[in-house]
Amino acid sequence: MNANTRLDAQTPGQIAQRLAAGFAETAAERDIRGGTPKAERDALRQSGLLSLIIPTEYGGLGADWSTTLDVVRQFAVVDSSIAHVFGFQHLMLATVRLFSRPEQWQPWFELTARNRWFWGNALNPLDTRTVSRTFAGWREFSGRKSFCSGALDSEMLIASALDGEGGKLLIAAIPTARSGISLGHDWDNMGQRQTDSGSATFERVRVEESELLLDPGPLSTPFACLRPLIAQLIFTHVFLGIAEGAFEEARQYTLKEARPWFRSSAATVGEDPYVLAHYGEFWVGLESTRLLVRRAAQLLDEAWSKGAALDADERGRLAVAIATAKVAATRNGLEICNRLFEVTGARSTHAALRIDRYWRNLRTQTLHDPVDYKVRELGDWALNQQLPQPTFYS
Amino acid sequence: MNANTRLDAQTPGQIAQRLAAGFAETAAERDIRGGTPKAERDALRQSGLLSLIIPTEYGGLGADWSTTLDVVRQFAVVDSSIAHVFGFQHLMLATVRLFSRPEQWQPWFELTARNRWFWGNALNPLDTRTVSRTFAGWREFSGRKSFCSGALDSEMLIASALDGEGGKLLIAAIPTARSGISLGHDWDNMGQRQTDSGSATFERVRVEESELLLDPGPLSTPFACLRPLIAQLIFTHVFLGIAEGAFEEARQYTLKEARPWFRSSAATVGEDPYVLAHYGEFWVGLESTRLLVRRAAQLLDEAWSKGAALDADERGRLAVAIATAKVAATRNGLEICNRLFEVTGARSTHAALRIDRYWRNLRTQTLHDPVDYKVRELGDWALNQQLPQPTFYS
Amino acid sequence: MNANTRLDAQTPGQIAQRLAAGFAETAAERDIRGGTPKAERDALRQSGLLSLIIPTEYGGLGADWSTTLDVVRQFAVVDSSIAHVFGFQHLMLATVRLFSRPEQWQPWFELTARNRWFWGNALNPLDTRTVSRTFAGWREFSGRKSFCSGALDSEMLIASALDGEGGKLLIAAIPTARSGISLGHDWDNMGQRQTDSGSATFERVRVEESELLLDPGPLSTPFACLRPLIAQLIFTHVFLGIAEGAFEEARQYTLKEARPWFRSSAATVGEDPYVLAHYGEFWVGLESTRLLVRRAAQLLDEAWSKGAALDADERGRLAVAIATAKVAATRNGLEICNRLFEVTGARSTHAALRIDRYWRNLRTQTLHDPVDYKVRELGDWALNQQLPQPTFYS
Amino acid sequence: MNANTRLDAQTPGQIAQRLAAGFAETAAERDIRGGTPKAERDALRQSGLLSLIIPTEYGGLGADWSTTLDVVRQFAVVDSSIAHVFGFQHLMLATVRLFSRPEQWQPWFELTARNRWFWGNALNPLDTRTVSRTFAGWREFSGRKSFCSGALDSEMLIASALDGEGGKLLIAAIPTARSGISLGHDWDNMGQRQTDSGSATFERVRVEESELLLDPGPLSTPFACLRPLIAQLIFTHVFLGIAEGAFEEARQYTLKEARPWFRSSAATVGEDPYVLAHYGEFWVGLESTRLLVRRAAQLLDEAWSKGAALDADERGRLAVAIATAKVAATRNGLEICNRLFEVTGARSTHAALRIDRYWRNLRTQTLHDPVDYKVRELGDWALNQQLPQPTFYS
Repeated sequence: MNANTRLDAQTPGQIAQRLAAGFAETAAERDIRGGTPKAERDALRQSGLLSLIIPTEYGGLGADWSTTLDVVRQFAVVDSSIAHVFGFQHLMLATVRLFSRPEQWQPWFELTARNRWFWGNALNPLDTRTVSRTFAGWREFSGRKSFCSGALDSEMLIASALDGEGGKLLIAAIPTARSGISLGHDWDNMGQRQTDSGSATFERVRVEESELLLDPGPLSTPFACLRPLIAQLIFTHVFLGIAEGAFEEARQYTLKEARPWFRSSAATVGEDPYVLAHYGEFWVGLESTRLLVRRAAQLLDEAWSKGAALDADERGRLAVAIATAKVAATRNGLEICNRLFEVTGARSTHAALRIDRYWRNLRTQTLHDPVDYKVRELGDWALNQQLPQPTFYS
Repeated sequence: MNANTRLDAQTPGQIAQRLAAGFAETAAERDIRGGTPKAERDALRQSGLLSLIIPTEYGGLGADWSTTLDVVRQFAVVDSSIAHVFGFQHLMLATVRLFSRPEQWQPWFELTARNRWFWGNALNPLDTRTVSRTFAGWREFSGRKSFCSGALDSEMLIASALDGEGGKLLIAAIPTARSGISLGHDWDNMGQRQTDSGSATFERVRVEESELLLDPGPLSTPFACLRPLIAQLIFTHVFLGIAEGAFEEARQYTLKEARPWFRSSAATVGEDPYVLAHYGEFWVGLESTRLLVRRAAQLLDEAWSKGAALDADERGRLAVAIATAKVAATRNGLEICNRLFEVTGARSTHAALRIDRYWRNLRTQTLHDPVDYKVRELGDWALNQQLPQPTFYS
Repeated sequence: MNANTRLDAQTPGQIAQRLAAGFAETAAERDIRGGTPKAERDALRQSGLLSLIIPTEYGGLGADWSTTLDVVRQFAVVDSSIAHVFGFQHLMLATVRLFSRPEQWQPWFELTARNRWFWGNALNPLDTRTVSRTFAGWREFSGRKSFCSGALDSEMLIASALDGEGGKLLIAAIPTARSGISLGHDWDNMGQRQTDSGSATFERVRVEESELLLDPGPLSTPFACLRPLIAQLIFTHVFLGIAEGAFEEARQYTLKEARPWFRSSAATVGEDPYVLAHYGEFWVGLESTRLLVRRAAQLLDEAWSKGAALDADERGRLAVAIATAKVAATRNGLEICNRLFEVTGARSTHAALRIDRYWRNLRTQTLHDPVDYKVRELGDWALNQQLPQPTFYS
Repeated sequence: MNANTRLDAQTPGQIAQRLAAGFAETAAERDIRGGTPKAERDALRQSGLLSLIIPTEYGGLGADWSTTLDVVRQFAVVDSSIAHVFGFQHLMLATVRLFSRPEQWQPWFELTARNRWFWGNALNPLDTRTVSRTFAGWREFSGRKSFCSGALDSEMLIASALDGEGGKLLIAAIPTARSGISLGHDWDNMGQRQTDSGSATFERVRVEESELLLDPGPLSTPFACLRPLIAQLIFTHVFLGIAEGAFEEARQYTLKEARPWFRSSAATVGEDPYVLAHYGEFWVGLESTRLLVRRAAQLLDEAWSKGAALDADERGRLAVAIATAKVAATRNGLEICNRLFEVTGARSTHAALRIDRYWRNLRTQTLHDPVDYKVRELGDWALNQQLPQPTFYS
């Protein structure tokens, strides 16, 4: 943790802990409701954590990625929707940092820290419906986008469009309030229900040249190629946090509510041999994931600190570490969220508890990009010593 | 299929198919709503299927268990709540058949067939809160019960109480409308949301001696001990039906909506090697379960047809076959309901599709009694040649 | 079982049982030794079982495939090498039956039954090193082959070569003693050690036109395409038999030799909760496999009895049933052979017991063709309703 | 790595690497042969590595546990029998260090370093057949023992006996050549074939009081209780090394020998989607295990450096970390050793390759104490926050 600025003498982890405690109180109810968690987003703004990764010279908290991602994980333990948009805030900041010139990202960093801006996502490289037309000194983005996490209630957007001529991906940072942008209140999914990952429509939206992230531009250098890795590692921390939350809720329920089956030889459910076996296996899965996730975050900090000096091989090895953590977090997490009911029992399915939300959230979020192709990537490394080829998903 | 009576020249399977098609149209919406599926219950009444297992001499359709359970499965493909209460209808009928004297069950069978009675459950052997006091010629049941599936909107109830003196389990068949019975509209769970498995309160409910199922009484003979096995096999058919429904919905979605991942070498998602691998594994799981389930149903028919001549060894071997099918249906079903999203992708998490309901329904229903102890029972057979000891769960 | 001829009033199953009891006595020792199980092969010759599938009108036992394959399984319980060559005997007989004219296969069947011929395999469609040259009225096969199961100590061989001109696969039935054929004593593998699956060399071997299986020829009609399915189903029965043998040996060891772990609450190992859990899971795997295998064998009998009337769709559905059984037998069998040691404990690794041979045998045999591609085939059926395309492996 | 002494300017890792390269050349052949690997044991003596953990002030190499255990792992990659006895050498040294007085262990350490003594094991707390009788100033050990790893060809033995009166476990360090000790050449197991884990017979063996490890004695303090944890962590490093060796041998075989299946769309086996999927999963398993193992070794070093100040809670948390690593190493390792054949194919079963030895070695070694009870221990921690109770296996 490099943050040498503190709010009220609290570490980011402590601030996050306090916020998380508040989020936890309403998380189940907000899972029913869906929509924008306005109060929680404002609490995040208020806390100063939206500029956690921003260096202190630009007014931020100056944390490293390990610290920042651990806050993502902490939020995910109690509310993985908030963890997601909080993670995406930092992914958007990383995007401008990695893809644009200092004269661009420095003011954006300062304004973000000063005005507590929330950044939303309207970059989706596989969605080709938004195109750009070139005019003298500016562009015009038009078309639709889906999966725009955190776009609602944001001050700034990272938006992409395909350049009309060559089909090249253009990325811009623009105010969410810019004329022509409309955001759908249409995210209604089985999980991650408060991530506002709905649609956006760009109707002849003017984008200035100075808002385009062209230099060095997307995925242009090994350092710029950290962007997708940061995205993947944010997801991984969300997955781990969900699994930890599921585990802890199961544990409390088992200890306080569950009873041994009438055929069990155990006096209490906490001594039942099969209950213990499940918890032992959950533990091994969680610990494996925790170590892989922590190692990946440390490697990201090392890579980040190298800046432009980062080479393709170093970036590739980081990609492998992150992919490994992500696959483990996906598999071990789903196992826990699915099987935990076998240690909590029939009564734990009561709707008011909403213990199924861990599975719904994790199942939804783990579909962002297919785990099968992540495993394949690792296989290509393990067998052929072929490092992952940089894309927006690797 | 032994049914020699037909309604409109339709087999029970055809009637069920027609009903299922209707249930399917509203199943997702009713999953949101919860509560009593009144229209669907009335359609069941109307169809005549509520007397499917009732012999033709008492006015029923005279089907065997294989046919009856297959209808449970057919309903579960589209709506596992209805499958559950339909299955329990027949479990209640089996209960009176197995635990009471012909002078008792014959009229009940006739009245059920004639009046299209729905039977509900208020028998829960592990819930000791309802007790019975003895009076001259009658009893009085008082106390609470939980998990009373299908009690709401029923004409008859199977209710249990512990006999005040010795704590012996008393079971009675009584009109749901009997004074003193109140049923809670309080079932609100993450799955199986229209099974009405809420609470019941018995406030000094009068129960006549002639309503008690005392001769031969619960679990008194190998034949009477078929009752819990029928319950277990109904669950197993519900599990299989859910898995089949999940598989079919996934399949349609993959074929119609999904696209190959941009790193896939396949031209269509239907040729993607990993998608095919998942479907291949789903298939092996489904086929294994189907054969085990079918074999168990055939063995139940054989055992049922032996009546009082059924011996403990035959009953025990049937118990093993049913437990085997149940464990396989649980494990293979959860695997499909959990993993199907990996072949349908991120867009299939849209709430309106409610594809998560397969997992929620199966996860909820499979917690009725712990699969760990079912596996243990099978281990005791496999290793020690010890047949399962009859209880209300084995 | 259609066999209406009996030897000494014994069914084939009883004869097999007697033989198996003898094989069992020396199986562990012969696993060390490897090489040709001459005494056991002669016992098979003596028993008459080598003509089990040959119709009675040609002097055989006239059994159906279900019976024949069940004998394969029975042998595999105690000695999977013998099961393999016994299965291949019948695969070779099926090959001439399906690929040649009645004037060819009828005499071969009669001679086999009369002289108790053993048939060996030198057909390997993926091994392209043996080629055929055409002369007036005959051919000449030259080249090498590997994996020639049961060729040593055989009277007849099914041999293949690529036709020099077009590269078409030619298959012939020739006496093993034919000049120019030499068989390597070079099979020395980690498992299936007495299958003699070594190499063969053909040095200008003369093959008469009348020995070529040209009409209808390999994989020419749906009926002829049963040949690879019979091969696959023989393997599947070998896999199941190995798993059953492993299970039974584990069970005997647990009951007679194993002791509960000192931290176990159980008085005997047979009551240990984890030991019971393993056995319960073994049981579910075995029962699933047994039902799938039995169903596939019945469907093969149905298909076989249709003869030339068998259509591609019927053949395809049989292929699916067999592939399903094979995948389940592979996965469930490996699980048992690998995990059984967890219920027998450290002492059961003593070399003299050779309990590892179940895993070595199954692991070796299950590599014949990749299970991944069998799963893919099933996926193509499950998702796309595409029946397996006939090849020598499907 | 704390070793500040170097042999020929080589680190212990480099020395081990050189030795391992030599061991690798004959490992497959010695796996066939079994028996004592005399040449390799002498090479170990010669290398100085037998005193790797011995502090430099007593003439040893002064390495920490992380370094020492990593050498165990390095050996296990190529030869897990040697890894096992090399690990046990250090377990025996830890035993005298932890259970005896400085006046005892210091001379033993010096003599070991000076004379390059190999220590063998004759301590088996669950084997109660060896008893001790008390005489004036000495004891007499009589009886049999099994599983005496590395006792043959050793200079010193750690031997245990039950004290005749109270049944208390007595442990002594005695010269292997002491009169009355005879060691069986009777280890012949399916795996770990050169560990010499055979039997020992004690025929009225005189044991001096000064040879008894009484102060502080076995499992007497948290620090003394590190002994079983060191044993467990040695095993864990052996497991990891075996899995890494299996992985690497599979990889070489796939790349150099395997071919894509004829139905594969891949041009080379290294591009086959299923082959890549297997390697990707192997990688995740290996990396998970590696991080857990490394973390546990670091925690052991921390605990070791605390000496008598180590408290029960710190020791307990180390026990949890080691148990976690051990369960992961067991499960992930067995998965790799069993499944690797699916990426190497049928030809890789050739006996001369002996690729099955990885599975045989790991399967044998992982049975030392039941993984089920290790999982249970972890469950007790995860659910009940109950630290493992120190025993010779926890």
